[in-house]
Amino acid sequence: MDRTPGLEVREPPAACSTLLTDLYELTMLQAYHAQGMNATAVFELFVRRLPQGRNFLLAAGLEQVVDYLAQLRFSPGELAWLAASGRFTPGFVRSLADLRFTGDLDALREGTVFFPDEPILRIRAPLREAQLVESRVMNLVHYQTIVASKAARIALAAPGKLLVDFGLRRAHGAEAGLLSARASYLAGFGGTATLEASRRFGIPAYGTMAHSYVQAHDDEEKAFECFARSQPGNAMLLIDTYDTERAAAKVAALAKRGVPVSGVRIDSGDLGEHARRVRAILDAEGLHRVTIFASGNLDERRIDELERAGAPIGGYGVGTRMNTSADAPFLDCAYKLQEYDGIPRRKRSEGKATWPGRKQVYRRRAADGRFCGDTLTLADDHGAGAPLVVPVMRGGEPIEPRISLEEARDYARSEMMRLPDALRALGPAPPYPVEVSHELQQLAAQIDART
Amino acid sequence: MDRTPGLEVREPPAACSTLLTDLYELTMLQAYHAQGMNATAVFELFVRRLPQGRNFLLAAGLEQVVDYLAQLRFSPGELAWLAASGRFTPGFVRSLADLRFTGDLDALREGTVFFPDEPILRIRAPLREAQLVESRVMNLVHYQTIVASKAARIALAAPGKLLVDFGLRRAHGAEAGLLSARASYLAGFGGTATLEASRRFGIPAYGTMAHSYVQAHDDEEKAFECFARSQPGNAMLLIDTYDTERAAAKVAALAKRGVPVSGVRIDSGDLGEHARRVRAILDAEGLHRVTIFASGNLDERRIDELERAGAPIGGYGVGTRMNTSADAPFLDCAYKLQEYDGIPRRKRSEGKATWPGRKQVYRRRAADGRFCGDTLTLADDHGAGAPLVVPVMRGGEPIEPRISLEEARDYARSEMMRLPDALRALGPAPPYPVEVSHELQQLAAQIDART
Repeated sequence: MDRTPGLEVREPPAACSTLLTDLYELTMLQAYHAQGMNATAVFELFVRRLPQGRNFLLAAGLEQVVDYLAQLRFSPGELAWLAASGRFTPGFVRSLADLRFTGDLDALREGTVFFPDEPILRIRAPLREAQLVESRVMNLVHYQTIVASKAARIALAAPGKLLVDFGLRRAHGAEAGLLSARASYLAGFGGTATLEASRRFGIPAYGTMAHSYVQAHDDEEKAFECFARSQPGNAMLLIDTYDTERAAAKVAALAKRGVPVSGVRIDSGDLGEHARRVRAILDAEGLHRVTIFASGNLDERRIDELERAGAPIGGYGVGTRMNTSADAPFLDCAYKLQEYDGIPRRKRSEGKATWPGRKQVYRRRAADGRFCGDTLTLADDHGAGAPLVVPVMRGGEPIEPRISLEEARDYARSEMMRLPDALRALGPAPPYPVEVSHELQQLAAQIDART
Repeated sequence: MDRTPGLEVREPPAACSTLLTDLYELTMLQAYHAQGMNATAVFELFVRRLPQGRNFLLAAGLEQVVDYLAQLRFSPGELAWLAASGRFTPGFVRSLADLRFTGDLDALREGTVFFPDEPILRIRAPLREAQLVESRVMNLVHYQTIVASKAARIALAAPGKLLVDFGLRRAHGAEAGLLSARASYLAGFGGTATLEASRRFGIPAYGTMAHSYVQAHDDEEKAFECFARSQPGNAMLLIDTYDTERAAAKVAALAKRGVPVSGVRIDSGDLGEHARRVRAILDAEGLHRVTIFASGNLDERRIDELERAGAPIGGYGVGTRMNTSADAPFLDCAYKLQEYDGIPRRKRSEGKATWPGRKQVYRRRAADGRFCGDTLTLADDHGAGAPLVVPVMRGGEPIEPRISLEEARDYARSEMMRLPDALRALGPAPPYPVEVSHELQQLAAQIDART
């Protein structure tokens, strides 16, 4: 992000603009500046409750938070805009010029299974830094976490099947398209259709053809042949533009003539029934290696039905309902001040009270390795098992080596294998036990008595 | 976007990467390249059906589509990555270097009320251009349209009240935060909390304070006073951190001492009941000008309840449920080939058949100016009323002058005033009549007979 001397100042792209924050963060910072308040603050990000129909969440987005914090600074253009807005004093705007993130970040590793009230991340930094980053830190973690949690359910519904993110077009903007490709890959998808996500994150790219390709040709069989010859060994033909079974017969005829076809995609109608008929048409010609790929309005429930019915489908393209987490498009999450200047703090707003102080989570495992219960306690307490909240940045610097997306994906897979069966089910499970330690309950009571 | 000679190649930011597309667009382009197919294609983007519980949609996102199309080109780094991927022939990758958008764009003006099957936009361009842009054009229009359509309902529920977008933190990524600020402003919101959206789009910025500000102080009244003195004339104090009515009494005491307070915000509990009690506390001290602003899990239904009950609330901060369009986080929309090389095309997939050809919409108005019915017909037909699909780009160039966000917002407001009462209601209305012309029905039948 360093600027080459002598060049025109370039504004950073939106995704890393430090103005990607709420106005109130800066009005608070101005008040803190006027008061000379900048002692160490501790904020934690957590989820208040699970969305309806979800049994667990999967942490994601930490890598982007680290990048954001490590690069945090106001550009000269941003400062000039703030000054010109008339809302802020010149002295305050000047004070922002040297603002960097100099604090500590502790967090659940990406791919960790977690539950309400457990801290996803904790920021400990001078007050102005820890406050300013609230909006974007939540924006990054919230979105990837809902997508990873949704994609994990889809992966549970289709063990061993190839799952591909198809959802850029209906994801909520460019960054949602890119980050949902990342979050779904982390949670067990096999790849994405989005090229920029493949380039940026190293995720395998998959693609077939659109109906428009078939429609642009006067003859469907001709369209299939031209496409297959232009992607030798890699051609996945879309067969539902006009009549799925007739198209499958055309594919079979082409394959018999030696045209290289690797698979077919079905995108409409009764996917299970079409898949069975198409499988029979292909198998009758000995084309057992031509796979069937399904797409169209899929989510974990629809895929579960197809899998339970034994539909001969080798993989699924899942878009919109995954990228938007359509049944639960948001989490009730919060980034709350837990400690300021060494003193634990607690919000008591109706229905939104928080557990105070710096917290840690200890997870117990049964004899078979499955998770059997967590304890939420204070960070300085000791507990049974390994602590889940681990150091990620110290003094503004990421702790090296950073964890790669592949490592996080492996970790998520191991977490999913340790989920109790009830939580792996798509239907609602009894709540996973998260016990609040005696020490933490005592601290909350002390703070309530104090204020 | 021109690069200064002699500089290191900088990659464009993700939001304008031409790789922000699906792999299949490029596999199709490679097949078209191999076949020498690049005649004029016409694609239209439309919605197949309204989301449940919605009576109309509001078109948004066109401005960003124009920017995207006008800047479309592959960077050298993108071409190098494509070449290195091993998926494409060198000749095809070379052919992409001079790809620009040279076509025509026709569309509904931003802020137009529209219904299923009506084209939101039409792209007429050489096949490779019109196909490549599918993913990002949909991504831009789909998201802003669902948000504008949701925000319009919220505006209908709160006539005359200030509505502020509070949703960056739970919007799906950075671009969703920015574009939902824009789309909600277009649909009638008064401003946004997101500073970068204010800077980029000229939308008024609003902000209050967070609970953390109060918590960081040992004394709530001291916190209020410091904040108010640091934002003279502009201080909106958050009063629900501990006890809403006790905090309101502290605010009243401060105001009586001459500390400048412009309003209070309530973010939890029974907002209507708290607002009434707080209003009484403020009024008892003659503080009639101190306004009450409400936030917290709001959407059009909750606001409608508060307004119908006459809650003394002057404005609403609306976040998550608006930015994610939580009750309908996606639209069933499609970008379909309607004509290639002068011949109308039609997809007939089960449940997904399309109306063929280049289309136009004519809207009739009743004597009072209200919309009373549309006709979907072919673009070359004439109809009653003004055509809604208008020219936006010709030969790859935007038609000047472009429409400003303020103009689009004014237009949306006039559209909302012309909505029939049944459609303005939050509950389900009888479907608005969209009639398919005889000419269009005949064309569909002809194509079905042909294939």
